[in-house]
Amino acid sequence: MADDLDQRVLAQAIDDIVASYALHGNINHLDGANLPSRALVSGLLDDLLSIVFPGYFVEDEVDALTCRYFVGERCVRVLRRLEVVAGRAFTSSGAEAAANEARARQLALDVVREIPRLREILDTDVQAALGGDPAAASASEIIMSYPGIEAIAVHRIAHALHGWGVPLIPRMMTEIVHRQTGIDIHPGATIGHSFFIDHGTGVVVGETTVIGDRVKIYQGVTLGALSVSGRTGRSRLKRHPTIEDDVTIYAGATILGGDTVIGAGSIVGGNVWLTHSVPPGTTVMLDKPSLRFIAPGG
Amino acid sequence: MADDLDQRVLAQAIDDIVASYALHGNINHLDGANLPSRALVSGLLDDLLSIVFPGYFVEDEVDALTCRYFVGERCVRVLRRLEVVAGRAFTSSGAEAAANEARARQLALDVVREIPRLREILDTDVQAALGGDPAAASASEIIMSYPGIEAIAVHRIAHALHGWGVPLIPRMMTEIVHRQTGIDIHPGATIGHSFFIDHGTGVVVGETTVIGDRVKIYQGVTLGALSVSGRTGRSRLKRHPTIEDDVTIYAGATILGGDTVIGAGSIVGGNVWLTHSVPPGTTVMLDKPSLRFIAPGG
Amino acid sequence: MADDLDQRVLAQAIDDIVASYALHGNINHLDGANLPSRALVSGLLDDLLSIVFPGYFVEDEVDALTCRYFVGERCVRVLRRLEVVAGRAFTSSGAEAAANEARARQLALDVVREIPRLREILDTDVQAALGGDPAAASASEIIMSYPGIEAIAVHRIAHALHGWGVPLIPRMMTEIVHRQTGIDIHPGATIGHSFFIDHGTGVVVGETTVIGDRVKIYQGVTLGALSVSGRTGRSRLKRHPTIEDDVTIYAGATILGGDTVIGAGSIVGGNVWLTHSVPPGTTVMLDKPSLRFIAPGG
Amino acid sequence: MADDLDQRVLAQAIDDIVASYALHGNINHLDGANLPSRALVSGLLDDLLSIVFPGYFVEDEVDALTCRYFVGERCVRVLRRLEVVAGRAFTSSGAEAAANEARARQLALDVVREIPRLREILDTDVQAALGGDPAAASASEIIMSYPGIEAIAVHRIAHALHGWGVPLIPRMMTEIVHRQTGIDIHPGATIGHSFFIDHGTGVVVGETTVIGDRVKIYQGVTLGALSVSGRTGRSRLKRHPTIEDDVTIYAGATILGGDTVIGAGSIVGGNVWLTHSVPPGTTVMLDKPSLRFIAPGG
Amino acid sequence: MADDLDQRVLAQAIDDIVASYALHGNINHLDGANLPSRALVSGLLDDLLSIVFPGYFVEDEVDALTCRYFVGERCVRVLRRLEVVAGRAFTSSGAEAAANEARARQLALDVVREIPRLREILDTDVQAALGGDPAAASASEIIMSYPGIEAIAVHRIAHALHGWGVPLIPRMMTEIVHRQTGIDIHPGATIGHSFFIDHGTGVVVGETTVIGDRVKIYQGVTLGALSVSGRTGRSRLKRHPTIEDDVTIYAGATILGGDTVIGAGSIVGGNVWLTHSVPPGTTVMLDKPSLRFIAPGG
Amino acid sequence: MADDLDQRVLAQAIDDIVASYALHGNINHLDGANLPSRALVSGLLDDLLSIVFPGYFVEDEVDALTCRYFVGERCVRVLRRLEVVAGRAFTSSGAEAAANEARARQLALDVVREIPRLREILDTDVQAALGGDPAAASASEIIMSYPGIEAIAVHRIAHALHGWGVPLIPRMMTEIVHRQTGIDIHPGATIGHSFFIDHGTGVVVGETTVIGDRVKIYQGVTLGALSVSGRTGRSRLKRHPTIEDDVTIYAGATILGGDTVIGAGSIVGGNVWLTHSVPPGTTVMLDKPSLRFIAPGG
Repeated sequence: MADDLDQRVLAQAIDDIVASYALHGNINHLDGANLPSRALVSGLLDDLLSIVFPGYFVEDEVDALTCRYFVGERCVRVLRRLEVVAGRAFTSSGAEAAANEARARQLALDVVREIPRLREILDTDVQAALGGDPAAASASEIIMSYPGIEAIAVHRIAHALHGWGVPLIPRMMTEIVHRQTGIDIHPGATIGHSFFIDHGTGVVVGETTVIGDRVKIYQGVTLGALSVSGRTGRSRLKRHPTIEDDVTIYAGATILGGDTVIGAGSIVGGNVWLTHSVPPGTTVMLDKPSLRFIAPGG
Repeated sequence: MADDLDQRVLAQAIDDIVASYALHGNINHLDGANLPSRALVSGLLDDLLSIVFPGYFVEDEVDALTCRYFVGERCVRVLRRLEVVAGRAFTSSGAEAAANEARARQLALDVVREIPRLREILDTDVQAALGGDPAAASASEIIMSYPGIEAIAVHRIAHALHGWGVPLIPRMMTEIVHRQTGIDIHPGATIGHSFFIDHGTGVVVGETTVIGDRVKIYQGVTLGALSVSGRTGRSRLKRHPTIEDDVTIYAGATILGGDTVIGAGSIVGGNVWLTHSVPPGTTVMLDKPSLRFIAPGG
Repeated sequence: MADDLDQRVLAQAIDDIVASYALHGNINHLDGANLPSRALVSGLLDDLLSIVFPGYFVEDEVDALTCRYFVGERCVRVLRRLEVVAGRAFTSSGAEAAANEARARQLALDVVREIPRLREILDTDVQAALGGDPAAASASEIIMSYPGIEAIAVHRIAHALHGWGVPLIPRMMTEIVHRQTGIDIHPGATIGHSFFIDHGTGVVVGETTVIGDRVKIYQGVTLGALSVSGRTGRSRLKRHPTIEDDVTIYAGATILGGDTVIGAGSIVGGNVWLTHSVPPGTTVMLDKPSLRFIAPGG
Repeated sequence: MADDLDQRVLAQAIDDIVASYALHGNINHLDGANLPSRALVSGLLDDLLSIVFPGYFVEDEVDALTCRYFVGERCVRVLRRLEVVAGRAFTSSGAEAAANEARARQLALDVVREIPRLREILDTDVQAALGGDPAAASASEIIMSYPGIEAIAVHRIAHALHGWGVPLIPRMMTEIVHRQTGIDIHPGATIGHSFFIDHGTGVVVGETTVIGDRVKIYQGVTLGALSVSGRTGRSRLKRHPTIEDDVTIYAGATILGGDTVIGAGSIVGGNVWLTHSVPPGTTVMLDKPSLRFIAPGG
Repeated sequence: MADDLDQRVLAQAIDDIVASYALHGNINHLDGANLPSRALVSGLLDDLLSIVFPGYFVEDEVDALTCRYFVGERCVRVLRRLEVVAGRAFTSSGAEAAANEARARQLALDVVREIPRLREILDTDVQAALGGDPAAASASEIIMSYPGIEAIAVHRIAHALHGWGVPLIPRMMTEIVHRQTGIDIHPGATIGHSFFIDHGTGVVVGETTVIGDRVKIYQGVTLGALSVSGRTGRSRLKRHPTIEDDVTIYAGATILGGDTVIGAGSIVGGNVWLTHSVPPGTTVMLDKPSLRFIAPGG
Repeated sequence: MADDLDQRVLAQAIDDIVASYALHGNINHLDGANLPSRALVSGLLDDLLSIVFPGYFVEDEVDALTCRYFVGERCVRVLRRLEVVAGRAFTSSGAEAAANEARARQLALDVVREIPRLREILDTDVQAALGGDPAAASASEIIMSYPGIEAIAVHRIAHALHGWGVPLIPRMMTEIVHRQTGIDIHPGATIGHSFFIDHGTGVVVGETTVIGDRVKIYQGVTLGALSVSGRTGRSRLKRHPTIEDDVTIYAGATILGGDTVIGAGSIVGGNVWLTHSVPPGTTVMLDKPSLRFIAPGG
């Protein structure tokens, strides 16, 4: 008896769930065409990183004899995966299916051709980390245990895709590395060379941020927008700040607004909250720690 | 010789470890009954999310022909896994074994029946994200790359289990999503519809927090308890704040205390530290950025 | 035609990547000897944690009959893996290959012998969590769902390896748990017993930090260095603060500098920014929340 | 020097292999479209067998509450996989791509609809095994440990596909089970109900064989063709024997030729070699074991 | 339209399958209790073989330091798995559930205790292979590439379980190795020491066969029953032959019948068909190859 | 109590097993150096076959754009794996460790260079199958579903290794394919081009067999040695027959002896037993089926 009841209850529950797919259709994806899944995009990132930093993340001795073949095969994997995920992304964003295949293949080749340039700039990022952290012992240690390097590498890949107009994938890539590192950089942000993020948890860099060369930021830094009232279509205005060359921003500082420019060579102290520009060479600090001390007997 | 020595050293070390299991027994679990493992609870969450957002996280074309069967099978998997983990959780918390099986099965059916209601409220959460972030391009982008949506979805599941008195599992669920997203919401917290968390890293929402409808919070927000002196049993007093409808809380703000009520429609600025209530419609901001500027030549 | 073009484009791209390996050789690792990979180090940590907290993270009933054999086999796995990764780490840091094998085996035995002592101190950490959080229901809940416990356990392992002069591995271990928990403790930091981290996301503890017994810290706390100007070799000066026994540091507080000592029994309030010492028993708080309130009609 | 030499040798070897793909093109498949792989066809067979004999080969409690959903989901998996492999098979055999998709889907539905009929006839095969082997203890033992049952089940599936004109897949299916059991039945063979194969290793049943009801054969039996001289196109003549109802054929017997008919109720003894028909009810045996006995002192 | 039709067709097909589960219930297993699956039994065999021949089938350096722990852990795995599969087997064969748990644990301990005796006799089997095949180069080559050794090892394990009255499992074990090697030995057969099977494909050894010491057989040998007319309950009569010590049986020979005894030291030639006894020391050969030779011009 | 008893029983059993490792040391491999495992050799074979028949066994579209990179990477995998397994094999057979590394690398390069020649001869084997079996529909069907092709391909690889003096590995390779196909060809056998094995189960080809071009054999054929009396060291005499060009041997035929030569163009009928030579062009058949027919009423 109880079993019959359970069967009816379960059948009803399943009917209700299927009915809810009709009722709340915008949080389903039931048209039979796969979206680019997180697992697929994640595997693609792993392959790209293994080409960019060969020998670091693969359990396979790579040497002069073999590296050419390792690279060739990884590039082909990247090509194949990119064709798939980019094709799905174009389709899911409403692009006409006929042109998508050729577009996805062209894009895939472009990404592979971009890798030497990516390596050139990532080399400057690793140098910046080595120069900027007294605790860093070697380039190997930085590549293998600094979350900032991984976040920047993924950003630079995602930023290229974003620039080529690929939907969905760039945001999925940066969110994947956000989950790993706590560093959330929008693919739209423009970042110069020799960029260093230390520790990194809680860093947020908004879509229209512009960052110069040799900039250094610490955990908990937000480069964000001022509050938005109302939403009228998807805004592409510059809503996030500009950080000029050679700026250092310490932990927990918040810099907001599309017109805010931090002049070259400035230093922004920890926990500072800035919503307006400062000229080059400025040091900004919390005035005095406005604290109350209570002695043991107080 | 050396080998013999190594053998004796290793044998002694293993004896010492086994001895330490007797000595520090409260950090072992050696009674031969498995606890609900993180892997099992994590797989259960994956299954639940794949029913709640079908077509988004599964590498399997789901369409009108197949979705009923997809749902049916996933519900059965959820039933089976929940019976196992809930049974273990009841047992581990000392409940009488005899009643646990029936209780776990009833619970499992209840969870499946809850899914349509979960989808109804999660639809409002996705709408809130779409309306609240100018950078969001589509519902797909939000579901696949906004950590806040995942954290809220898991919270709503865990909160239901918590309400039904299930031990251990709800906290394991929220900790699993905390590890993924940096968003730490206690299953006990009560949260209204259309809830939006942007970026999210570092968000902490305490056990007895109450949050109204259409609330929006940013990364680094803490809704916490005032400091506790002494511990006298497990307190169930309201120790965390109440956030009324339509409140927005910007990044890094901290609101503490069980009697603290943020009135409906209020705005709490970034980095604000609040330990008392404010009436509806209040805007609270850091008074003036209390900063010191040092010019280059300064 | 198009295909021929694609073949030439791809072949050129691969040549360019291989050329870039010569050009930017410091971000390659192509000498044919594997580095200790993240996957290997991560598996090693999993094995160590399963010995330290038996029965909690393994899907395998462990009981009085079987625990001795479970421990024996895991210790052997730990030995074998440690020999591999430590051997690679010694080699990668330029140590003479001949001595590395014996050194790695001795080290591996030392780690296994250290486990009872690790368990002894971790028992105090679990007790501290149970005593310090009113929301904690049991030791099981703490071990299975408090990220702080995992971060501390890994730190204590990594700190021992760091003390024995093992390169690379300790930092990889702490970064692995940083990715999981958002808690970033340098292996060099010295930490007393009964240490409790609540929530934890965004915590940073620097290399030369010294922490006493029964210290409690919350999410977003930074124990860091004052800014460094210039880099002259790898500094081993004490650059991070000293926290004496029985100190509590609330969320978001920042304490900087190698000469900064927080005296025993002190309390540091949330968001406080401290760059100098305070005597034992001091309570430090933000003076008054320097806020501006705008009423609805304001 | 040696390394440079190795590099040149390896590069040359790879060039030679690629050149050999042009030279011996009929043993490559390099047109960029996947063939139905053995792994895919094997997974499809596993799914089909788990629907046909539910509860026997799956590590998942199936009961009255859940079996409907188990079946639904497996049928959908079968549909999806069959669409893929049949589509590839049609394409690889030169069929026009446009029609293949619809044809593959129709075929997939037909296979699912065939399952009840397959179960009906397989029930008779299991009964025949239970009745025919004194060592058989139960239907469970037969389904789980008699290779003949698996070979017959796969044959009956492959025979249906073969009848519907599907290229490649049926032969791949029977070869998969041949590798497992040593029983090689061509998908073209027609086999009645209550068929029993004992032990089975070395059994060969040719393409145009016709077998009646309640036939029993043992290991090493060949039902084959007489030798073929010359090959003029692919012959579809009846080249293999006809075995009427209720015939038993003992181990190692060989029966050859398309005109050979073994009359109903006949018994063919072990190792017998037959190339002509026998009337119903005949018993055929090796006349007398034509042996030479040499005594110890001989 | 077509899609609606497909949905109805699929729903009907699934209903028909579920209906067929009621109609042909003896080839389902839907009572919600798992049977001992082939995968589980296969894993158990792998574990047992890795204890019996340590260092041969495991990718893990085993040496004097570690072998004790390797063995301990494997024995525990064997214990746990055996408790599960034996428990399921007892239950599936109708035994009273209450006693099964204790019985399964006792059995599991007995199996582990049996291993030294198994190794003692398997050592003689390896010696027999080394002595009997001029192509064999070493004990390693025999253990790693002679299917006969694997078949005998599994038989000796299965025979012990069969002797202790375990249902289902022994037959599943021998069928697993039959699929691998083409050698089909019923667990009931009694086999002496120093047994050697060369090549082995097609060997069949029946349930009540008795084989003495130092017996050698080749591929395709059948030790079987004479034909059975009718089935009256499960026969336990001796239906298969007795092979005394020091007998050699060449490829393809067939020896049938429960009263047939091949006297000690006899040699049975290839393809011989024997249904009666021969005295000790007899050599039995096909009298003269009764062949017809046709010369080229014939 | 019972538990204590079980603990003692288990501990004793494990002690006994470890003691048996000392007692029967020739069936252990406990010197801490891994042997070439079956899994490793099997993976190596899979890689080799995927280069030899590209596009047939890999789930990865291979085309003109990508095949060069696919081949390059697979060759590198083959190199790396061969260096490992050949190195272990040399060591296990007592070769001096110092020279083994260079020897293994040279061997690995030789194998890769051999592939074009292997493909050339395997092309003739596929043609022979296509020409020899009226049931064969295409080269694809033959490569994907004829066990004979796989057995021959593996033999040709193993034979090359055997010729270069590699111990252990060649036998492991042919045993792996024996388990899959029931075809057991010793790596020492010499086989000409256009070799075709149909069905194949039970085929045995001995170590010193020599087979000419365009030979065709069926299931159950044995090319073996006459019985050996006594064993005096490892014999390398020619113990198995010579089959000249264009011979066909039907199912179940047995040809024995090192001096036996089957002249070119001969046909050996099914089940024939031959221990002496026949001149070219001979047809050998069983004289007359020496059968007894018993009519129904007989």
